[in-house]
Amino acid sequence: MDKVNLKQKLSLFAGYWQPKIVGELNGQLVKLAKLKGEFVWHQHRDEDELFMVLHGELIIRLRDRDVTLQPGELMIIPRETEHLPVAAEEVHIMLFEPASVVNTGDTASDMTLEKLDRI
Amino acid sequence: MDKVNLKQKLSLFAGYWQPKIVGELNGQLVKLAKLKGEFVWHQHRDEDELFMVLHGELIIRLRDRDVTLQPGELMIIPRETEHLPVAAEEVHIMLFEPASVVNTGDTASDMTLEKLDRI
Repeated sequence: MDKVNLKQKLSLFAGYWQPKIVGELNGQLVKLAKLKGEFVWHQHRDEDELFMVLHGELIIRLRDRDVTLQPGELMIIPRETEHLPVAAEEVHIMLFEPASVVNTGDTASDMTLEKLDRI
Repeated sequence: MDKVNLKQKLSLFAGYWQPKIVGELNGQLVKLAKLKGEFVWHQHRDEDELFMVLHGELIIRLRDRDVTLQPGELMIIPRETEHLPVAAEEVHIMLFEPASVVNTGDTASDMTLEKLDRI
């Protein structure tokens, strides 16, 4: 049981679209990720997902609108809601979601990760 | 489904030790709170609890040590772990925890809240 310093944890990795696990509670994971460019359209059938921006500007495209998140802003994407994260420049985020989440949801992609590292 | 700006939400209330609900996902609540002074020793029997500091310096007293959290730092307090949050000066935090959590856990106190507001 140690505290987590987000900036220190973010200094430990460089790759984009590869979330790292930094905490677990009540079957939910806390993750950090660096994003740049465009992800893939996807949805999670059974899991709601929280995005919180720590650095940079994240656009979350929904089928009916785009939402722009700045540092200090968060958004919860309900299950069964198609979304596409887009980062024109590097973005750092914190994610909070069930341990069962697959990063690309029900979309098979080269970006799909089988297993996440803990840092 | 709207984004949440943490500073804007924090501007909507003033009372200490009265968490406000700003989001819900997967049976978990996202809360914001302002703290000043000393809370009460307590534990949660069935729930792990995440504290993330947004402003100020929070001391979390555990039975064997004190942990100091600065902005950008978080800590997960496992269930059945006695803890006492202390804020010498005003502190703003975000909490992630199950919807079932009672703020003072198994400690009955004047600070126990029956119901939290959503903002």
